[in-house]
Amino acid sequence: MTLHILNPNSSRVVTDGIDAAIDPMRAVSPVEIRCHLLAEGPAGIETQAHVDGVVLPLLAQARALEDGASAFVVACFSDPGLAALREQSRKPVLGIGESAYLTALTLGQRFGILSIKRGSVARHIKTLGAMGLLDRLAADRPIDLGVAELSDRARTFARLTEIGTRLRDDDSADVLILGCAGMASYRLDLENTLGIPVVDPCQAATAMAIGRIALARCS
Amino acid sequence: MTLHILNPNSSRVVTDGIDAAIDPMRAVSPVEIRCHLLAEGPAGIETQAHVDGVVLPLLAQARALEDGASAFVVACFSDPGLAALREQSRKPVLGIGESAYLTALTLGQRFGILSIKRGSVARHIKTLGAMGLLDRLAADRPIDLGVAELSDRARTFARLTEIGTRLRDDDSADVLILGCAGMASYRLDLENTLGIPVVDPCQAATAMAIGRIALARCS
Amino acid sequence: MTLHILNPNSSRVVTDGIDAAIDPMRAVSPVEIRCHLLAEGPAGIETQAHVDGVVLPLLAQARALEDGASAFVVACFSDPGLAALREQSRKPVLGIGESAYLTALTLGQRFGILSIKRGSVARHIKTLGAMGLLDRLAADRPIDLGVAELSDRARTFARLTEIGTRLRDDDSADVLILGCAGMASYRLDLENTLGIPVVDPCQAATAMAIGRIALARCS
Amino acid sequence: MTLHILNPNSSRVVTDGIDAAIDPMRAVSPVEIRCHLLAEGPAGIETQAHVDGVVLPLLAQARALEDGASAFVVACFSDPGLAALREQSRKPVLGIGESAYLTALTLGQRFGILSIKRGSVARHIKTLGAMGLLDRLAADRPIDLGVAELSDRARTFARLTEIGTRLRDDDSADVLILGCAGMASYRLDLENTLGIPVVDPCQAATAMAIGRIALARCS
Amino acid sequence: MTLHILNPNSSRVVTDGIDAAIDPMRAVSPVEIRCHLLAEGPAGIETQAHVDGVVLPLLAQARALEDGASAFVVACFSDPGLAALREQSRKPVLGIGESAYLTALTLGQRFGILSIKRGSVARHIKTLGAMGLLDRLAADRPIDLGVAELSDRARTFARLTEIGTRLRDDDSADVLILGCAGMASYRLDLENTLGIPVVDPCQAATAMAIGRIALARCS
Amino acid sequence: MTLHILNPNSSRVVTDGIDAAIDPMRAVSPVEIRCHLLAEGPAGIETQAHVDGVVLPLLAQARALEDGASAFVVACFSDPGLAALREQSRKPVLGIGESAYLTALTLGQRFGILSIKRGSVARHIKTLGAMGLLDRLAADRPIDLGVAELSDRARTFARLTEIGTRLRDDDSADVLILGCAGMASYRLDLENTLGIPVVDPCQAATAMAIGRIALARCS
Repeated sequence: MTLHILNPNSSRVVTDGIDAAIDPMRAVSPVEIRCHLLAEGPAGIETQAHVDGVVLPLLAQARALEDGASAFVVACFSDPGLAALREQSRKPVLGIGESAYLTALTLGQRFGILSIKRGSVARHIKTLGAMGLLDRLAADRPIDLGVAELSDRARTFARLTEIGTRLRDDDSADVLILGCAGMASYRLDLENTLGIPVVDPCQAATAMAIGRIALARCS
Repeated sequence: MTLHILNPNSSRVVTDGIDAAIDPMRAVSPVEIRCHLLAEGPAGIETQAHVDGVVLPLLAQARALEDGASAFVVACFSDPGLAALREQSRKPVLGIGESAYLTALTLGQRFGILSIKRGSVARHIKTLGAMGLLDRLAADRPIDLGVAELSDRARTFARLTEIGTRLRDDDSADVLILGCAGMASYRLDLENTLGIPVVDPCQAATAMAIGRIALARCS
Repeated sequence: MTLHILNPNSSRVVTDGIDAAIDPMRAVSPVEIRCHLLAEGPAGIETQAHVDGVVLPLLAQARALEDGASAFVVACFSDPGLAALREQSRKPVLGIGESAYLTALTLGQRFGILSIKRGSVARHIKTLGAMGLLDRLAADRPIDLGVAELSDRARTFARLTEIGTRLRDDDSADVLILGCAGMASYRLDLENTLGIPVVDPCQAATAMAIGRIALARCS
Repeated sequence: MTLHILNPNSSRVVTDGIDAAIDPMRAVSPVEIRCHLLAEGPAGIETQAHVDGVVLPLLAQARALEDGASAFVVACFSDPGLAALREQSRKPVLGIGESAYLTALTLGQRFGILSIKRGSVARHIKTLGAMGLLDRLAADRPIDLGVAELSDRARTFARLTEIGTRLRDDDSADVLILGCAGMASYRLDLENTLGIPVVDPCQAATAMAIGRIALARCS
Repeated sequence: MTLHILNPNSSRVVTDGIDAAIDPMRAVSPVEIRCHLLAEGPAGIETQAHVDGVVLPLLAQARALEDGASAFVVACFSDPGLAALREQSRKPVLGIGESAYLTALTLGQRFGILSIKRGSVARHIKTLGAMGLLDRLAADRPIDLGVAELSDRARTFARLTEIGTRLRDDDSADVLILGCAGMASYRLDLENTLGIPVVDPCQAATAMAIGRIALARCS
Repeated sequence: MTLHILNPNSSRVVTDGIDAAIDPMRAVSPVEIRCHLLAEGPAGIETQAHVDGVVLPLLAQARALEDGASAFVVACFSDPGLAALREQSRKPVLGIGESAYLTALTLGQRFGILSIKRGSVARHIKTLGAMGLLDRLAADRPIDLGVAELSDRARTFARLTEIGTRLRDDDSADVLILGCAGMASYRLDLENTLGIPVVDPCQAATAMAIGRIALARCS
């Protein structure tokens, strides 16, 4: 049996980054963990059309994996297809956005979100409204870096630290969430620098999925 | 290393029931799981004074277990001492009330709570307000059975089914939570009878703790 | 120029019903109004996979109509593709679900929703959370009739009246919304019988779109 | 038949400004549109006593116009007398504050309000609470200009741009509302400068009233 | 100095009832307490036009009493003119609706409202939204008795008991509020019958005003 | 009979400060007012373990005072033991945190909290969620002064003014709350400097208790 992590974009680099992020959990997972990209997906999920457009191929991919699956994780912070996949599958299904929020709820009173792009903030707010979690949001602030800047690790970490400090000090966040699937490599350093917990969504969802696989033993 | 489940009352029967409820998860847990009662606790947590009064002995009990602990679960639906234990311990700490709510959030849009006593409803509502989750509550309805009736399994199941049906049909709950630590043995039958997921809080919290132990590998 | 009403299912009967429902507004519309079905859509939008699956063909359909369009209405109560179409089009875009809610906000303090199926209630609640409108919801109650019963007009009206009475008297709704695209023919009779306003979503959205076309003159 | 826009203050200048703001919509309106001032009203609605005090004369004015009215718009951002006029009239009644909020809901996820005076912010927040819309508010910030400064168009526009930029960048507003009846002439330039939609309340309400007049054909 | 209780209707009977309701507090009040009717007011506040229409004469009445006033209480459950009177007066001003809600917040987790007429429920909900207190409302249910029935004390008490029981048992209210100024004579019996606190708004506001007069000594 | 103010820490200085703060109300109080420290309490309530740990000795202290008590005030802004003491006592029980919030609700639309330490902000937010009052919170900002700085009155007042100004101007608070039991001596100066009401929690609670003692005459 396998825990399938479904990255709904077609990027091998992002998928490998997710694999590396969750790799330390393999040692204690009761099942194999495999990370998949979606060949039919875009290079990155950036627009609402991307979010909606990946659902049907994602459902097809998951349907093919259903029989040997212990659980599924949808590995995009916008949780595309999460509701549809829960409707389709008889196995536990978790989204990395939802799991990051739920994990943060146990680590602080108000979470701050470090988004990549300004344009995604409204989408997060809408999702948090749909989840009924807006009262736990401190603020969602974009780091607003372009592709070139994001490839500069020192620049990216400095910006994460700057915006994270603002979320902590001005917005009273006592836990932070990395608002995208590919920032796990900054998590621990950021946590140590800021002195409050920082949640990586892929790690949070994989951890919850491992728990849910255990829970399924009670049925 | 051990996952410690701390029942803050002094009942051996309740503690053994919790142990039985989470036993199937031992097969996939990366660490030993031990259930403890609290010798200084009351026979049952029924009043606000009970909730507040168990905190100091619970903290002392956890402090003695800290070094060998992978994680702690506070096993009373009112989550007594949860905030204080998180403040004290460097290990993951989960409450069964909180974990039941968070698990239910991933299984439906609005959860119904099957409380034992009418008197606990207000306490649950207050906790849900503190957690910012009231928009996800369908309703909280007591089964209002006395001790004698609760010892009659058929009577108890009939009443759980009756109130659960009301929560599902009149209050539009699409997932139910058993609002106390000792009802796990009814969970699966109730789920099958009502056709919607039913969450046992001890199982939910243990599952989340297993996930959190995995997550700790990423630090 | 044309106001395009896009029914995202492939049913000619439903599309004709929508056309009849909004027909009286043609006399005062500054532009032509055309109702379209979606050939690639399912016979009815019933599942989350349906909701997500129609988005790409709907976007393609709207893209082909963009140049001559004054505005678009997405004519399914679940508002599939609403956010994506707003992202794509430079013209006003309205969804019938959203428009029904906004119209109801001006006609009463708390609206009741008459859903067809129990299964859609959770989806409505989630949408209302995303829209931040849950405080204005009295209750959402399904009439739960099957296809055969729905074809019996007297039976359907009796059931709408029964559930509408409950929403008005038990749940304190002072305005009702027909929670589906095909019930407009019952609207006026139901309003007269219950004595509170009843909103048909297709009519509400078409009216708002006519207003928005007027508003566009100010740019 | 006529759409009556009722400015509840006695200023001819403000009334003429409203008339100019909505003038482009006359070309597509199915009925004549007339703007009225309230002779018994104050020069401007600035205090709660003003808000409450204009209701009775406003009701009298509307009563005299009832027979030939297609709809009424109350043209003060505080929506004085809106509930009372709805109670009195059998025609559609819209307030410019309410209409601005509802229109903004379809143009972005969180709206920012550009208020004239700090003292009106609390009144807006209270109204938004009464409407159940606080979750959609990004922030309400006053431009805090005096009468002399407001008569300097360049100064006013610069200040609107400054505060609008803050609402967009610090408060994550993705749509703005001009929080008073007399700022329409800045709307388009501000929208172009800031790159997000800007709603003028008089225009929004007139557009909604035109839609509502169309909707009335369905009864 | 005097605590002035301003009943904004013109009924001597209602005013005398208020006087009787608060009379036991005179023994411990540091100032004289006087109840006034409003000659210009209607016989009863029943419509929104009544609510808005009494504000100006109420302000005039209070202005004439300002110098010798220790505090003001507006004695109608709809709190007409409360905001305007606070704006006008330099003395503490309390409304009986607001005071009833605030008092109930300290006596239970969720309050039920016993309204007289169905038509006032929406107005209460709107006020509670403006006050941000909707999460504390269990339900608002009308007793819906006509004038003749209200003059029958046994009939009225039976109906209060019936609806109060429903609020307690079905809606989980743990404190009740009498939603009108003239029901104080039933309060104690109802409280004893139902076993949960029952708040009379005139008494609650007078008590808070006495406290506020004490607080003013600290300035 | 006596109004007992129970400071749950063991500091004589703090208790004397509370006594001085409420002293002006003694002249109009119908009963004696006595301030107590809690010998078993910590020097100050700073952690969650402190909050939970003082409950049992506080209950014991109150039990010994019950017979001669008119009312109790729990005099720590975190309101430790408030729910438990209400459960135990037949007399009115008020907490200073709760009373400060309720008083602020009548003095403005959105309150700002001046906390001492950053670490207490999350606890306040949680309490406000439990009370359902988050929509009335403008912001909670710490003055973050150490013990040495707090003993410097000029330094402390300057910092209160600085953060109070920010709460008023950036966060739109129109009333402020001193978020701790020992700041009453700054209240009036701060109010005069900032031009908006400032609430001291001990004074607010004592005033409400005096009102509640009056109210008890109606039973």
